[in-house]
Amino acid sequence: MIPDLDPATDLSLTRILAAPRALIWECWTSPAHIPHFFIPAPHRVTAVDIDLRIGGRFNTTFDVEGQVMDNCGVFLEIVPGERLVFTDAYSEGWKPAPDPFMTALLLLSDAPGGGTVYTAIARHRNAESRQSHEEMGFHDGWGTVATQLETYAMTLMASRRG
Amino acid sequence: MIPDLDPATDLSLTRILAAPRALIWECWTSPAHIPHFFIPAPHRVTAVDIDLRIGGRFNTTFDVEGQVMDNCGVFLEIVPGERLVFTDAYSEGWKPAPDPFMTALLLLSDAPGGGTVYTAIARHRNAESRQSHEEMGFHDGWGTVATQLETYAMTLMASRRG
Repeated sequence: MIPDLDPATDLSLTRILAAPRALIWECWTSPAHIPHFFIPAPHRVTAVDIDLRIGGRFNTTFDVEGQVMDNCGVFLEIVPGERLVFTDAYSEGWKPAPDPFMTALLLLSDAPGGGTVYTAIARHRNAESRQSHEEMGFHDGWGTVATQLETYAMTLMASRRG
Repeated sequence: MIPDLDPATDLSLTRILAAPRALIWECWTSPAHIPHFFIPAPHRVTAVDIDLRIGGRFNTTFDVEGQVMDNCGVFLEIVPGERLVFTDAYSEGWKPAPDPFMTALLLLSDAPGGGTVYTAIARHRNAESRQSHEEMGFHDGWGTVATQLETYAMTLMASRRG
């Protein structure tokens, strides 16, 4: 179920990906897979620490042009193969972050002709945060991630077919 | 499991209540029971709207000396009989609140001699929020709520014994 979006504070992107839902889910929830698609190249994910349960940590480290960025977050909702909600508004143990940026919802469903309907939603606390996220390049960035994810998932499929 | 508390941003209170855990849980999660203990008298709870699931709404309306106060929140974690986590940082659908106040953890365990070890923790985004919550009377307020809860639970027990 897609929540009622608020155009003043939410951003969203929907794509059809040529890979099954179970595989997209596996990619998004596995530390081994995440570095292969999670941020637009040439930026790199250098560490992933996941405890895939409600309130469990979802921590990543990025290398953005030589700058190290540590991101701390938690999972808010986990419906395998369907729905993953996470945020930087908490770190593990429900410790509120002083200045959270966003809450992300990843929604997966079967596409009519096969593949996956992939929707990524970023919800923000206020219009300024949404605006700044849009200007940082939400659509290009999350679009690139979706393309990288699809390419990586297809590579996995090919390698698993042997 | 009690999270590592941060004295700069967290407040907590622990009491032994003379009522079983299952009943304390029932009181805290039932719209019919909540008005009987949830805020210090003579303030009153005039409405409760609960959807007891992860991300489900936990909305209440208070009458504080004639002033109506609407409180919107969601449940973050639900472990029946043990652990209830909720916050005003979201409304239903994971919509972030512009200026959240706190995240509350209610932890229940069996007391050695019977009854319930009742711990209420309020976690805040920063030291200023914690300080303001303490000055608003966290300890007296949550202490009064614990006493009201115990009294109400004992009344329920007596009425159920017939």
